[in-house]
Amino acid sequence: SPALGIGMVGYAFMGATHSHAWRTVGHVFDLPMRPVMAAIGGRDADAVRAAAARHGWAAAETDWRALVDRDDVQLVDVCTPGDSHAEIAVAALEAGKHVLCEKPLANSVAEAEAMAAAAERAAARGQVAMVGFNYRRVPAVAYARRLIADGKVGTIRHVRVTYLQDWLVDPDFPLTWRLKREYAGSGALGDLGAHAVDLAQYLAGELLVGVSALTETFVRDRPELDGASSGLSGSGSARRGPVTVDDAALFTGRLTSGALASFEATRMASGRKNALRLEVNGERGSLAFDLERLNELSFHDHTESAESAGFRRILVTEPGHPYLEAWWPPGHALGYEHTFTHQARDLVVGIAEGAAPAPSFADGLQVQRVLAAVEESAEKNAVYTPVPS
Amino acid sequence: SPALGIGMVGYAFMGATHSHAWRTVGHVFDLPMRPVMAAIGGRDADAVRAAAARHGWAAAETDWRALVDRDDVQLVDVCTPGDSHAEIAVAALEAGKHVLCEKPLANSVAEAEAMAAAAERAAARGQVAMVGFNYRRVPAVAYARRLIADGKVGTIRHVRVTYLQDWLVDPDFPLTWRLKREYAGSGALGDLGAHAVDLAQYLAGELLVGVSALTETFVRDRPELDGASSGLSGSGSARRGPVTVDDAALFTGRLTSGALASFEATRMASGRKNALRLEVNGERGSLAFDLERLNELSFHDHTESAESAGFRRILVTEPGHPYLEAWWPPGHALGYEHTFTHQARDLVVGIAEGAAPAPSFADGLQVQRVLAAVEESAEKNAVYTPVPS
Amino acid sequence: SPALGIGMVGYAFMGATHSHAWRTVGHVFDLPMRPVMAAIGGRDADAVRAAAARHGWAAAETDWRALVDRDDVQLVDVCTPGDSHAEIAVAALEAGKHVLCEKPLANSVAEAEAMAAAAERAAARGQVAMVGFNYRRVPAVAYARRLIADGKVGTIRHVRVTYLQDWLVDPDFPLTWRLKREYAGSGALGDLGAHAVDLAQYLAGELLVGVSALTETFVRDRPELDGASSGLSGSGSARRGPVTVDDAALFTGRLTSGALASFEATRMASGRKNALRLEVNGERGSLAFDLERLNELSFHDHTESAESAGFRRILVTEPGHPYLEAWWPPGHALGYEHTFTHQARDLVVGIAEGAAPAPSFADGLQVQRVLAAVEESAEKNAVYTPVPS
Amino acid sequence: SPALGIGMVGYAFMGATHSHAWRTVGHVFDLPMRPVMAAIGGRDADAVRAAAARHGWAAAETDWRALVDRDDVQLVDVCTPGDSHAEIAVAALEAGKHVLCEKPLANSVAEAEAMAAAAERAAARGQVAMVGFNYRRVPAVAYARRLIADGKVGTIRHVRVTYLQDWLVDPDFPLTWRLKREYAGSGALGDLGAHAVDLAQYLAGELLVGVSALTETFVRDRPELDGASSGLSGSGSARRGPVTVDDAALFTGRLTSGALASFEATRMASGRKNALRLEVNGERGSLAFDLERLNELSFHDHTESAESAGFRRILVTEPGHPYLEAWWPPGHALGYEHTFTHQARDLVVGIAEGAAPAPSFADGLQVQRVLAAVEESAEKNAVYTPVPS
Repeated sequence: SPALGIGMVGYAFMGATHSHAWRTVGHVFDLPMRPVMAAIGGRDADAVRAAAARHGWAAAETDWRALVDRDDVQLVDVCTPGDSHAEIAVAALEAGKHVLCEKPLANSVAEAEAMAAAAERAAARGQVAMVGFNYRRVPAVAYARRLIADGKVGTIRHVRVTYLQDWLVDPDFPLTWRLKREYAGSGALGDLGAHAVDLAQYLAGELLVGVSALTETFVRDRPELDGASSGLSGSGSARRGPVTVDDAALFTGRLTSGALASFEATRMASGRKNALRLEVNGERGSLAFDLERLNELSFHDHTESAESAGFRRILVTEPGHPYLEAWWPPGHALGYEHTFTHQARDLVVGIAEGAAPAPSFADGLQVQRVLAAVEESAEKNAVYTPVPS
Repeated sequence: SPALGIGMVGYAFMGATHSHAWRTVGHVFDLPMRPVMAAIGGRDADAVRAAAARHGWAAAETDWRALVDRDDVQLVDVCTPGDSHAEIAVAALEAGKHVLCEKPLANSVAEAEAMAAAAERAAARGQVAMVGFNYRRVPAVAYARRLIADGKVGTIRHVRVTYLQDWLVDPDFPLTWRLKREYAGSGALGDLGAHAVDLAQYLAGELLVGVSALTETFVRDRPELDGASSGLSGSGSARRGPVTVDDAALFTGRLTSGALASFEATRMASGRKNALRLEVNGERGSLAFDLERLNELSFHDHTESAESAGFRRILVTEPGHPYLEAWWPPGHALGYEHTFTHQARDLVVGIAEGAAPAPSFADGLQVQRVLAAVEESAEKNAVYTPVPS
Repeated sequence: SPALGIGMVGYAFMGATHSHAWRTVGHVFDLPMRPVMAAIGGRDADAVRAAAARHGWAAAETDWRALVDRDDVQLVDVCTPGDSHAEIAVAALEAGKHVLCEKPLANSVAEAEAMAAAAERAAARGQVAMVGFNYRRVPAVAYARRLIADGKVGTIRHVRVTYLQDWLVDPDFPLTWRLKREYAGSGALGDLGAHAVDLAQYLAGELLVGVSALTETFVRDRPELDGASSGLSGSGSARRGPVTVDDAALFTGRLTSGALASFEATRMASGRKNALRLEVNGERGSLAFDLERLNELSFHDHTESAESAGFRRILVTEPGHPYLEAWWPPGHALGYEHTFTHQARDLVVGIAEGAAPAPSFADGLQVQRVLAAVEESAEKNAVYTPVPS
Repeated sequence: SPALGIGMVGYAFMGATHSHAWRTVGHVFDLPMRPVMAAIGGRDADAVRAAAARHGWAAAETDWRALVDRDDVQLVDVCTPGDSHAEIAVAALEAGKHVLCEKPLANSVAEAEAMAAAAERAAARGQVAMVGFNYRRVPAVAYARRLIADGKVGTIRHVRVTYLQDWLVDPDFPLTWRLKREYAGSGALGDLGAHAVDLAQYLAGELLVGVSALTETFVRDRPELDGASSGLSGSGSARRGPVTVDDAALFTGRLTSGALASFEATRMASGRKNALRLEVNGERGSLAFDLERLNELSFHDHTESAESAGFRRILVTEPGHPYLEAWWPPGHALGYEHTFTHQARDLVVGIAEGAAPAPSFADGLQVQRVLAAVEESAEKNAVYTPVPS
């Protein structure tokens, strides 16, 4: 099968997960194209060379523009902090490359609009652009979507999503880039809330039409970072600087159909490590999911007799479940990184077929609009704020 | 020990639970006074006589005023729908009786204010008044409060409470009194949300200072009731009438300390039967509870090492847990009705000692003010609405 | 409805649970006879009088023979330690009384045979005898039996039951009567294993045909009891005496159909308070239950598609579930003591109808034979030992 | 770092998992040697070439002897059915190669003895041999071992392990090699029971000294295989042949310290997909684990106060947990295949350091002796059968 050269920008947490996916996907799935890990890009020459060696990239570039321009790169995978997404992705699209961009799509609606417009222009040229809401590709989540699409939940009344983490509970956790508005755009909202919004809309097959929000920054200053950070960690110095993003965001909203939705995103929920919890209640059934138990889906069939009904724990590891035929026998758990491998699989298939897999840049823009409406509502005393369509 | 004559008004669901409590409490706890089930009141003579026989009351009255005036009644237990709480409770207090009143305290803030004022006057005469937020007396909830009071949770950042039921999912469930504003005051909000608000404030030891809310009535009309209903059930006729209360209420808010709180009350969450779920996250620890597993409390101690920390499932059935010394050996579950027995125990002790146990009518009034602020916010596009203090 | 006078012998843990049941059953269920708590018997005059007052019995007797002979007693409820079951129960049956006897039926097969023979003679005179395997009347267990009887599990392959407690982990827990062979017959085996065996056979609708067993007494001596003990507790002195019963019993066996069964009974499983866990696996489905969550039943329907199948958590609180119509709305939990109330209900109905409800004394005898085979196997190097039929 | 050439024999289920491990381990862990996937071996030329391409092996061999003899192979990884383990592993050891051999080590004690002897001779030459009990390297299991070694469980009283699957419930599942004694040695016993025994002994840090067992083959004949099978699946023909291994094995035993152990291995437990459940109860604490939730460990600290004690759910995803520092942030789940990557990591380190990581071939032999004692006991009416040391 033909090669698909990949150039990835960024080599921190997301760089590691995407590298794993590119190394693995061709050995697990039957693909119409053969991913080739052509080059990795990053500003620090030593670090990017080390990352290339560690993660299995053939070459390293210190200038993302050079990486985008490489002839052996057909797909640019953007794993940088949000403030550079727009510039890199638009340039790559304009250079004729396919693009995979980490979420949230951008740090502002304006950037996201530019990106979606570039993607639309590129689509006309046969290019594919995708935003990395990887949790859509947890098999249990994809199967939940299938059940909803098949009518097993019926008319939806409620969607509730909490995404709870606890790595900011300690007031002396240092000021990494994720805590600065200029790099991260927002805090728990963009980091966790973006996933929550995307999943709520994806599962329901509906959009949010308006939101009401409260946000809070509980710890207003933190130790300035002492040297580089990687992933979610870092060590702090004695000097403290201001946290310029939210620690937590709570919002409620209405979906197209009139269903009610509630959201909570926080990095201050002690004991909750990665508690992305989804619940959908409909007239015919309900679904529940917790990312901390990502191989399981809870499903209640409300059409059963009252006596025998109950939430069933489906172990989403059967060959008939999404993505599972390529993996292990029933009951053998998948992990977090598989979501990126599945994303890579669908993207490669999409590129081969000339059809961009969801979520598109337009989907990413729409999520960005929801996040902006959340921030606007929070600034305006929680007043219900429409999401522009 | 001296007798304490009890007169109860109402004989539906709450009448049954309170009767059970009065029959049982003296056989389980060492009490300073001996409860005597003197009389039960209700408008339908046959029904109230049958209820007296069934539930173990010595006499039956068809006029609640006659019941209140009985010399053998020192405590009036109000188990009627919310629209008659104020009239009965105030009359009983003014007649010199102690009063236990089911929740929510009233159907309006004005009524609740009158009741709290009457209770305050009565307190000066040595009378006791209590509102029946029975879930405070689930042993696991009372123990959670003890842990918070002991500092095990530290500064609270988040409180989240959902109270989910599903008995209104069927659009042909009939129009019982709980679906009519004139009797019930509100819908899921007053029925379930009142518990949620009381528990959030009780556990945190803080008050809500403001709220932002969305409410919804998904099923706008339902079959008119064909004859009498009891408890939560009833059978419907072909004629349909308007539902005049909310099916669901979502609200967020801020507590005195600045903590964020989120609430969801609904009777439309298919598969959730009695899912009153509480979670409190603090700097030093977190607690979680689900009424569907009422013998369990989850506690995370955030001061432990990261490696050995985790939410522990405490089976709240040890002799050292609240109320448990009077019951069975460890591991032997209690049920729903025990909360009423515990409430009765604390009330009898309070009467004997001349000290009203919490929650007082003033506490009930404050919850009513929160509910009113929720309704006001919902009417005003979810704008953040202060709770008067 | 006619009165049914009850005389109960014993006033410790089981005396309290049975008293609660007799006080409550007539107020919850529609009964064909009216239980009257006529008299309670016990050797210590002061203690038995106090128990009568506490638990609501009209009279107290210090001689069980006098209690049995009372004209106002038609049903004798035997709640003493196992060593006196046979004598009291046989005398009561021969005196023409109905008998309810706590489990295990006796401390030896010979005693149990005499009791079963007496019950058979009494049955010919219209008397009813029942053994108190109360856990059959947990609604979830009764519903599990219904599902199996309805064919939802199909041909059974495996039954596994563990009954784990931890109140003997502390080597200084004192030598109460339950640790002495002369009173208790055996240790975890008779106390916990008897329930396990009864439930396995009840659920499967099959009998054990043979067993292989290991037993162990981990703590061979314990502090002699300093004064009286009650329930499971007591305080110890400095002097230690020998534990003459097992701390734990593990056994495997075969059921009539060829299914395999495994059992574990122990009071040394730290952290397990009352973990009576049942699982049945059949060709068409599986069931699982844990007494620590007694309102729940897990059911897997193996005839569903592999994708949508899973163990569903049924909250056994629906009006259509066994015993539930008399209690609270869906989702409102029952507790441990309800099992005794249900047992009392079925017994009263059985007496009124002249038909002994299961489990009969013959059933109790059969369980005793299993326990004897377990002990015999344990003495004979675990060799597979048939259960006489 | 120096290369470590690997030659793997077998390319079915275990071939896929081992290949994934070898592809991944060097990109995740800092290794003292660089694994090179030199060659894969299998009898069918087309199939083995396809497997080489699919799984990333540089070369393919149809004769395992040729693979063993390759100069670029220093480590032979044996992933064939059990009947060829001994021949290949001994030959590889005698050819001077390091060996990793899938479990169970062999199909008989005699074979295992020969392998252990060969490993011992090879060790004297600096070669490393390891048996693939991969579940020791689930982080939660490795952490459980650490807690026990640190004294957090104290004197062990009980170990119970069930390993339940359901892929043989359907009586028309075909006769794959795992159902034939000549290839598989035994059935659920060797496939699942071997893991159970290894883990029980590994966690406890003790050996089984004797066992008592029942085994059963519920479905005595099954459809002959129609063509090749892969992994656990295959399609059957109309002709049926005899199942010559056990469907289920139940056994109890005693550990060195006198603790009791119970085991159940079955492939007939409908609804249980991969339920390897471990529980250890000790004087100071208890641990519980379920492979279906492999990122979690339950730990009860019995030294805490009775009120605050409970099984805590530890999410074993912290950087301080075994193997986790190399992976993702807290709360990001690992999966089944990670166990093989961890095994590969420890093996490479062991080879570099000249120290064989546990479990050794001697450990594998000891497990084989337990399995043989189980089969002997099952043939001798379950009589307690010592495990030779």
